[in-house]
Amino acid sequence: MTKTWNQAAFTAELGKIRVHADEKYLAARSHDYFWYSPILNDQLKDLRGELLVMPQTVEEVKHVASLVARHRVPLTLRGGGTGNYGQCVPLEGGVIMDLTRLSEVIEITPGHARVQAGARISRLDDAARETGQELLMYPSTRQMATIGGFLAGGSGGIGSLRHGMLRDPGNISYVKVVTVEPEPQVIELHGDEIQKVQHAYGTNGIVVEIGLALTKATDWIHTAALFDGYDRALDFAIDVQQDGLDCYLLSAVERRFAPYYRKFGDYFPADRDAIFAMVAPEEMDRFRADVEAKGGRVSFAMTKTEIQEAGLQPAYECGWNHTTLQALKMDKGWTYLQVAYPRPFDPELVMRQMQRHGEDLFWHHEMARMDGEIQIFALPLVRYRGKDAMYDLIAELEEKDGCTIFDPHVVTIEDGGMKEIDDSQIAFKKLADPYGLMNPGKTRGWTADMARGEDPNTEN
Amino acid sequence: MTKTWNQAAFTAELGKIRVHADEKYLAARSHDYFWYSPILNDQLKDLRGELLVMPQTVEEVKHVASLVARHRVPLTLRGGGTGNYGQCVPLEGGVIMDLTRLSEVIEITPGHARVQAGARISRLDDAARETGQELLMYPSTRQMATIGGFLAGGSGGIGSLRHGMLRDPGNISYVKVVTVEPEPQVIELHGDEIQKVQHAYGTNGIVVEIGLALTKATDWIHTAALFDGYDRALDFAIDVQQDGLDCYLLSAVERRFAPYYRKFGDYFPADRDAIFAMVAPEEMDRFRADVEAKGGRVSFAMTKTEIQEAGLQPAYECGWNHTTLQALKMDKGWTYLQVAYPRPFDPELVMRQMQRHGEDLFWHHEMARMDGEIQIFALPLVRYRGKDAMYDLIAELEEKDGCTIFDPHVVTIEDGGMKEIDDSQIAFKKLADPYGLMNPGKTRGWTADMARGEDPNTEN
Ligand SMILES: Cc1cc2nc3c(=O)[nH]c(=O)nc-3n(C[C@H](O)[C@H](O)[C@H](O)COP(=O)(O)OP(=O)(O)OC[C@H]3O[C@@H](n4cnc5c(N)ncnc54)[C@H](O)[C@@H]3O)c2cc1C
Ligand SMILES: Cc1cc2nc3c(=O)[nH]c(=O)nc-3n(C[C@H](O)[C@H](O)[C@H](O)COP(=O)(O)OP(=O)(O)OC[C@H]3O[C@@H](n4cnc5c(N)ncnc54)[C@H](O)[C@@H]3O)c2cc1C
Repeated sequence: MTKTWNQAAFTAELGKIRVHADEKYLAARSHDYFWYSPILNDQLKDLRGELLVMPQTVEEVKHVASLVARHRVPLTLRGGGTGNYGQCVPLEGGVIMDLTRLSEVIEITPGHARVQAGARISRLDDAARETGQELLMYPSTRQMATIGGFLAGGSGGIGSLRHGMLRDPGNISYVKVVTVEPEPQVIELHGDEIQKVQHAYGTNGIVVEIGLALTKATDWIHTAALFDGYDRALDFAIDVQQDGLDCYLLSAVERRFAPYYRKFGDYFPADRDAIFAMVAPEEMDRFRADVEAKGGRVSFAMTKTEIQEAGLQPAYECGWNHTTLQALKMDKGWTYLQVAYPRPFDPELVMRQMQRHGEDLFWHHEMARMDGEIQIFALPLVRYRGKDAMYDLIAELEEKDGCTIFDPHVVTIEDGGMKEIDDSQIAFKKLADPYGLMNPGKTRGWTADMARGEDPNTEN
Repeated sequence: MTKTWNQAAFTAELGKIRVHADEKYLAARSHDYFWYSPILNDQLKDLRGELLVMPQTVEEVKHVASLVARHRVPLTLRGGGTGNYGQCVPLEGGVIMDLTRLSEVIEITPGHARVQAGARISRLDDAARETGQELLMYPSTRQMATIGGFLAGGSGGIGSLRHGMLRDPGNISYVKVVTVEPEPQVIELHGDEIQKVQHAYGTNGIVVEIGLALTKATDWIHTAALFDGYDRALDFAIDVQQDGLDCYLLSAVERRFAPYYRKFGDYFPADRDAIFAMVAPEEMDRFRADVEAKGGRVSFAMTKTEIQEAGLQPAYECGWNHTTLQALKMDKGWTYLQVAYPRPFDPELVMRQMQRHGEDLFWHHEMARMDGEIQIFALPLVRYRGKDAMYDLIAELEEKDGCTIFDPHVVTIEDGGMKEIDDSQIAFKKLADPYGLMNPGKTRGWTADMARGEDPNTEN
């Protein structure tokens, strides 16, 4: 990989494509939420791209891709920049391609949307709502994140307990990918093939268009239920999920988070454990009855409009990595982990973990569905005591508790969520990024010798 | 109650009975372990008796009792002075009668001991052991406490999971009580009548002699088992107790106590929850197997001689209020509570309490037997945050968890363990302490108008 490239010549060839080279832009667009991890923060905070381009059309994307290939310059794609693992930090400098202007909602039909990859998820979901439909799921960063970034860097989130993880069959119908070659092609992937670019961190082609399933819209009630005992809150969550209560979000947040939910005041007092949920309006009576049957009480229940008028966050900003964010903003001594629990889930394991780790870990749990089964995740806050302590903790959670950790303190796909090299992604990379220019250093599966060896200057 | 009395005349009349009036003696013998409670400490720390007498025979006790009655001077009895509620703090000055010289072990026969009230429990138990027998139970203050103080101020302890509480029928066979009158009588109480002076804080007569049951001696193995999870440790303890494992002590101590058990090092590491136990030698294999079946491991198992040679405390100083003591000595921010759990005991309630109270409460639990049933007590450490917070906590544990609190932050019998006035004790007080001179202020059941109204100077 070369680090010397002719930036002036590259810039000149961009034509009217929007471009920035000043330090302020570059600094801001070279980072994401990697600072959640002190380990990544040390590694990544000084890294910068050298040029920021912001194409507005697929033609412009292709033009940039062609230039990148001919100049053999590293290319990092960027959506909302809300990833947590430095996914869009350019490890080797080069060009940052910001896709947020490639944002057209192309078409919304019954049960389906076609959209350009750089569209913000909120805008897409709002557009779907205008047709009485909504997205199957979104990350809690709905407001900032793009649909392409979600596909390439995310996994699931709000809605996942109703519709499974993003990668589950039927959620994404097709993607269009631009290859990074002197003469870029557009490849369309369908069905299972979509996995080739899913969660690939933009290492194997530029996703420019996505088709995805929609469902009938529900005016979800944003609500919280309070319990005296975190095991009771978890028990409740498992029970209602098993009983098929129709909800879009079900997050358990233990009482020690209450001070971080300042706006909520008595809605989330420090002596109660909370369930934040988005519940179908016609299910609210049942929800309330179930809460009370388990000795809890509903502290609020509002429509999205009401919750906005009350000056509170919507419930989807009370779960998943937003819970973590509330705490991290207020106390820099925290970092976090991503934990998947063995099935069937046992709340007593959590109580034991709470006891074992005391003040070192604060817990919240997310109810989801995976392969059709109930799957519980946790994103605990972890008091940071250095890298060794972090890996001791990871080993403990894995070996003692049978949990699976998606390590958020590493930059590669494999060390994080994926655990192993996805051969089909690497095979696709040979096709879509033959020179190995895309997001270098983010996949262990790609080695320098795999790059196509042509003379970089043939077309330059 | 008069506070002016003729101390010189009183002293002169004592004859050859040992007496001290210097401040050092008085300060030391006016206090007990009330400093466990910051609330009591504020109330009691400056209180002093005015004269210390140390009778050596029942005759001398009677002589003091007569003088006290004639001089109408408050009288506070004192054994080892190891009570936790200021039981032997003279609230209204007067005479302290230290009974530790009235300490003859009168007779040991098969199954029974007769002993003077001021004998240290350790000396009595050791004497019983010389005949192949042992006490049914003792407080963890075995070394310091007297048998009379245990009867009048204690309730149970080591051995209680095998033989019930001290008050259970058959444990004490008789007591001899000296009345506080100008002409003191000796009253002998048997069977159920013994309750009249049991746990009466020395307010209704001077116990001078006690008969109590003995059992065949066992060379208890002092041992600890470690578990990963406090619920697992508790589960184990309940199970072995239900299965009738023969043990004399079974205390669960959660991992956060480990730093307070410094001498134990790896025998009680900070990442494990401990069971401290005294187990019958022939049961050790079963104990070990049960520990391992529950995923734990035995960290040591020693005879009493071995444990002394290893420089460690015996197991009976690892449970009950000795656990509390280890912590209090090292961190003055702690105080404690005494908690009885509803039956049947549910370890999950404890996990919920641990979660709810976080760093504010550290937990240890004592397995006992009461009315023949398994009864669990806790003596949690409580981070002291003032009186209001303490009473909020007590209310919470009682109302939410159905626990019964024996409040150790009060000086009266009724506000502490007994909850209600014991009419039979008050009736007996009218007989044994007709002028209301004994330990004034310690029972709500006694009011000034109950005192016999004779002229105090008739015999003076
Ligand atoms: C507070 C907070 C809460 C979060 N909650 C969730 C959650 O609930 N669920 C969840 O899954 N994640 C969550 N995340 C992580 C992150 O927000 C999501 O993964 C989000 O979907 C990323 O979208 P983005 O547009 O910001 O992507 P970016 O961060 O911009 O990019 C993510 C990755 O995708 C690549 N990429 C971007 N666009 C394209 C494209 N068009 N083609 C190919 N590759 C591309 C980038 O190179 C990068 O590797 C959360 C993060 C934060 C900070
Ligand atoms: C570290 C520690 C651990 C403990 N563990 C336990 C335990 O496991 N179980 C338990 O029950 N308690 C326990 N206690 C409380 C206390 O040790 C016991 O109650 C003990 O039995 C008191 O005996 P003592 O001789 O020290 O009595 P003292 O403190 O001297 O007196 C206790 C009360 O009895 C009265 N009294 C004393 N002698 C007589 C007498 N001859 N006639 C009438 N009244 C008399 C006194 O006036 C006073 O009111 C513990 C205390 C400490 C500090």
